[in-house]
Formats: sequence, structure tokens, C-alpha cells
Amino acid sequence: MDLTQLHRQAGHWLRNRGPDADVVISTRVRLARNLVRSPFPTRASQEQKDEVREQLSQVLAELRHGKRDLWINLPETSDADRELLRERHLISREHAEGDQHGRTVVFSKSEILSVMINEEDHLRIQVVRAGLQLKRAFRVVGLIDERIGRKVEYAFHDRFGYLTSCPTNTGTALRAGVMLHLPALMSLRHIEKVMQAAQKMGMVVRGAYGEGSKPHGHFFQISNQVTLGKSEDQLIEDLTRLVRKVVEYERQMRKVMLKEQRSKSEDRILRSFGILKSARMVTLEEGMSHLSDLRLGIVLGMISDVPIEAVNELFVLIQPAHLQRVLGLEIEGEELDRQRAEFIRSRLTQAQPSNGSA
Amino acid sequence: MDLTQLHRQAGHWLRNRGPDADVVISTRVRLARNLVRSPFPTRASQEQKDEVREQLSQVLAELRHGKRDLWINLPETSDADRELLRERHLISREHAEGDQHGRTVVFSKSEILSVMINEEDHLRIQVVRAGLQLKRAFRVVGLIDERIGRKVEYAFHDRFGYLTSCPTNTGTALRAGVMLHLPALMSLRHIEKVMQAAQKMGMVVRGAYGEGSKPHGHFFQISNQVTLGKSEDQLIEDLTRLVRKVVEYERQMRKVMLKEQRSKSEDRILRSFGILKSARMVTLEEGMSHLSDLRLGIVLGMISDVPIEAVNELFVLIQPAHLQRVLGLEIEGEELDRQRAEFIRSRLTQAQPSNGSA
Repeated sequence: MDLTQLHRQAGHWLRNRGPDADVVISTRVRLARNLVRSPFPTRASQEQKDEVREQLSQVLAELRHGKRDLWINLPETSDADRELLRERHLISREHAEGDQHGRTVVFSKSEILSVMINEEDHLRIQVVRAGLQLKRAFRVVGLIDERIGRKVEYAFHDRFGYLTSCPTNTGTALRAGVMLHLPALMSLRHIEKVMQAAQKMGMVVRGAYGEGSKPHGHFFQISNQVTLGKSEDQLIEDLTRLVRKVVEYERQMRKVMLKEQRSKSEDRILRSFGILKSARMVTLEEGMSHLSDLRLGIVLGMISDVPIEAVNELFVLIQPAHLQRVLGLEIEGEELDRQRAEFIRSRLTQAQPSNGSA
Repeated sequence: MDLTQLHRQAGHWLRNRGPDADVVISTRVRLARNLVRSPFPTRASQEQKDEVREQLSQVLAELRHGKRDLWINLPETSDADRELLRERHLISREHAEGDQHGRTVVFSKSEILSVMINEEDHLRIQVVRAGLQLKRAFRVVGLIDERIGRKVEYAFHDRFGYLTSCPTNTGTALRAGVMLHLPALMSLRHIEKVMQAAQKMGMVVRGAYGEGSKPHGHFFQISNQVTLGKSEDQLIEDLTRLVRKVVEYERQMRKVMLKEQRSKSEDRILRSFGILKSARMVTLEEGMSHLSDLRLGIVLGMISDVPIEAVNELFVLIQPAHLQRVLGLEIEGEELDRQRAEFIRSRLTQAQPSNGSA
């Protein structure tokens, strides 16, 4: 796999259907770890960062021997490359910019596993899966963590747990999040309730894909807020239970929506579909919003001949850095919106309204 | 022809392409006349109205002998029937309601000629044609007027000319109007200039189809404001000259639009097309607006396999009374919007983006 080819398709994991795919897009679990005898990256000198990278790279290379991973030294990448990695969630938004010295990201061919060296912490191990797979994702993250832990000494405090660069991660240093598609809860105005219920359990609901607080296209991420005072297993279990409840709630509300607002829902979904099939310029925000409707339309059987995985993939591929790669040019503004419209149309040629909706 | 079948298609005249069809929808010329020895309809008793109807019906029956005209006594019609006639401009908005006593409308099979008895004036003779055909329309109106004038005595004043129920019609009692499609002048904000130029010539520009001042879908009617002080020929000539200028202006602005805002225009047009092909609920206002874009798209070669005449016809057929007839039910609100969406889709099955726009 070559970084320059990355834009052609989303990560392999996203192109498969996961559990509860009607509501859940993806599961992401991440552990932060630091080496005991080196300063945190935010405080380390270039030499110290180089040493950490050297040491961790060696450990990882042994551990991943024979795997077809991609190793990327971020100081050698262009801004556009890092933006591409960021859009795929392989590096974080906060760390795509600024001093890249000593940073390396390693990820598996499927992009399920990714390991970041010298980002905010010395080590961040991330596993992502399609659909709701918190336990499975955590198992893999834990396995990698354990194996690395046999070769290096982690910064660990008997009372506080794993120490991290930012105190909000200290303790389990575990961040688990699930991306959900909640159009019915949005439409029927029940999101507020979900947010309150989550907060009581130490979880947080955020608009996903949208910059800042405004969600694009009815996507929400539910993740743990608290990393201290609960075991990892407990945390994964609590989050799973909460997400399952939200998934059931969304399914119920979809039934209510179909019963009480069938015409309006059908109209909105098929309009979005018509616009995606016809428009010549589409912004990211608008694209997300219509693709969200399209995704719901597929799940509800109003749109056929396009799988939801294809729509999931589009959410990734219509982002700016991906589209710029499609053209191989640094385009922006209207030209980018034109490319986005064309790209979406090219992926939806087979899609059509189902007979029942005609 | 049967009134109950009227909703199935627009008047025959509209289903043909007239001169300057890229910009001009239709031409309408109307003469008002009153009989000298009877009070105006607004002042007449039922008996007096009956007498006028008797007399004028006899004259018309002789004149139109052998023609397949439709004669409709309005007191015998339902509210829905009159609404249907109004939507086709065969009777006026002002006179579709209120006391219908003594009123009759007679119109030719093609609906090009219509004669109204006992509306605001004893007699209103109207001719409508597709495209810009002011002289031709006026010739026909004049001919009918002249022939009737041989059989009855019109109320005529040496100094004021033809006397009418409303003083704004007095003089020539001629109202000539042209319905134009001016999307480029609207989009580039030049309509204000057109309105001012028209006013200086004693003409007025009004939003057409829209209720009140707000135009739906970039349609405007230019008609004479003044009926006094100019001969009929002069009035028709002046209006023709003004309309020709506006037509040329619109054509120029379409070129400018294509040169300077090609992507945006194409996007707007093809989106409207996509929505019309997909939406499940469409209000009249929205339908007009998208059909306006579609019409422009056909003229500009962005949409193919649908003639502009089909779009012109849709403007008539998607109106509420027409749609209610399609179902044979008095539907309204969402159900009407659903029927409108379905009806539009059924008429656009062949239409598609042109290759150049794909």
C-alpha cells in the first residue's frame, strides 16, 4: 500500500458491514502510554524524541514482523499528506499541524490498527472497527499494549494509574468512542435526552464530522469522558450498554417517523438523493447532510442498489484532502465543490429509488 | 370538449411553440365592451343581466356558427369548475367568486379565443397565443370586436372612447400583456431597470403566477398601463417594441450568466431538475421555481428529451384545481403536494441532463 493511493478508497474496515450497521458507523478504542524514563513529547528535546522513536520503532517492528504495515515518518510528509491521514482518523486533528519532529505513525493495511509515536503521548494505540464492536476492538488494543509493555517500562502510578501528557487521560488512559447515525432522534428532537443520559454515566455525546459543535448529517460520537476510577472492562461494558440503548431508541424513533411522518421523511430522503445525483457543486457540509439522508433511505428500503458501506466510504472520500488527491491538484472553493459533486455522482450511478417509493 | 376533461392538458395554443419561445411564454390581448342601453353589470339587476346575456349569446352564436366552442353558464358551475377556468385564464381571478348571475364564458376548442359575458363589463373578448404574437392576437380580437359591433351598439364617447365599468379601462379598453421568462435578468439583478424603462413608456411589469407582488419562478408580465390617448395600433406597436428589447436583454444576460457563472447556473438548474425528478411533495411555489430553472436548462441545452412546451403546460397543470381534477377529489395541503410531485415526475420521465452537462 502506498500513501499516494490512499485516497482511492476508504480503509478496508469501513468497506465491510459491522454489527448494528443500520445505526452504528464505527467503533474506535485508543490507549495512551508513556515511557517511564523519558519526558512527555510536549516537554522533550529533539534528541529525546528521536530516542523514544528509535526505541518504540524497534519494539513495534519486532511485534509486527511479517505484517504489511505502512510506516510513515511525519516530518517527511507534506501538509496534504498529513491532512489525508487526519481525514482518515489515522492521526489526530490537533497533531496534523505544528512540529512533527520524532513523530511516526504505523498502520495496518486494513487501517484497523494504528500506532502513533510522539504525538501528545509517546505512544497511542488505536483500533477501529465497522459497527458496534467495543469489546473486540478493546481486546486487540489491549493485546498490543500488553505485548509492548513487556518490552518497555510504562509510566505508571499506583494511585493514578497510567500517566499521560494531558491529565484528562490519566488513569486507564483509555478513550473509547462509537460513531452513530441518529437521523430519527434528531428529527424528532430526542438528542437532548440522549446527551443527558450519557452525561450521567460519565459519557459524552458530540456531533461527529462537524467542526466544533455543529454536527453534519446527524452523526454523533458517544465516548467516555472519565478515564479514572473505573476499570477498562467496566468502562467498555458501560459504554456498550449505553450505545445499545441509544441504538434501540433510534430504531424505535425511525418506526415512529415512518408511521407519523412517512411522506415528509420519504420526500426529504428522495430529494437528497435527487440532489446528489444531479448537483454540479456540493460543499462538504451539504454532501454530509444529503448522504446522511441517503444512508437512512437505504436502511429504510427507500433507496436500492447502493450498499450503506458505499455511503460510509463516501463520508471519508469527499473530504477536501481526499478530493484533492483525486485530481492530483491543490484545488479549493468552487473547483473542489465541483469535484465533490462529480465524485459523488460517479459513486451513485447504480442507486435508484425502490419500487415502493416510486 | 368537456369541462370535466379540461384538466388533462393545457389549452392547445400553449402546447405549440410560439415566436421567441426561449423567453416569451404567451401573449394575451383583451378588449372590454359595453352595450349602450344597459347598465354596467356591477349596477344591473338580474333581469337586465339576463337580457344582456340573451342578446350577446345570440350574436355570438351566429358569429361562431359551426365552431366547436364550449359554452359555460357560470351560475351552473361549481366553485371547483370556476377555479379550473381561472387557472387557465379563461375567467379572471376577480370574477371567479361572488354573484355569477348572468355570466357566460364561451371559448374555442384551442382556447385561443374566449369571450366573457357580464363579468365586469358586458363583454370581454380575449385572444391568447404562445410566444410573442401581439399583432396577430390583436388582429383576431379586433375582428371579433368589429363583427359583434355590427350587431349591437357599444357604449362609446366621442372624447373618452369606449366606456367601461372601471375608468382605468376606458378609451381603447384594450389590455395587452406578454408573459416573459426572465431568469437571467432576475439572477443578475436587472429587473429593476426593466421595470423603470417600462414605466416610462406607460407599461407595467408585474410578477406573473405569483399571488400579489412576489413572482414565482422568474415569470413577469409586461402589459399596458394606459388605455387612453394612444391608438390601439400604437399601443400594440409600443408594447411589441418594449418586449423585443427585454427579450434581447434577457438573451444577452443569459450569455453573460453562462460566461461568468456557468457552474453555479448549471448547478442550480440540474439541482432543480433532480428535485423535480425525486421529490415526493412539491408546493406550487416550489414547483414553479424549479420548473423555471428546468425551462432555462432546456433552452440552454443542459436538459434534453423534454420540450419547453411540456414545461409550459406543467405551469398550468400543477395548479390546485387542475390537480384536484386529476384525482377527482377535493384534496389540499400535503396530499395536494404529493399529487403535484407525482404528476410532475410522470411528465418528466424522459427528461435527462444533456451529455455536455453530465
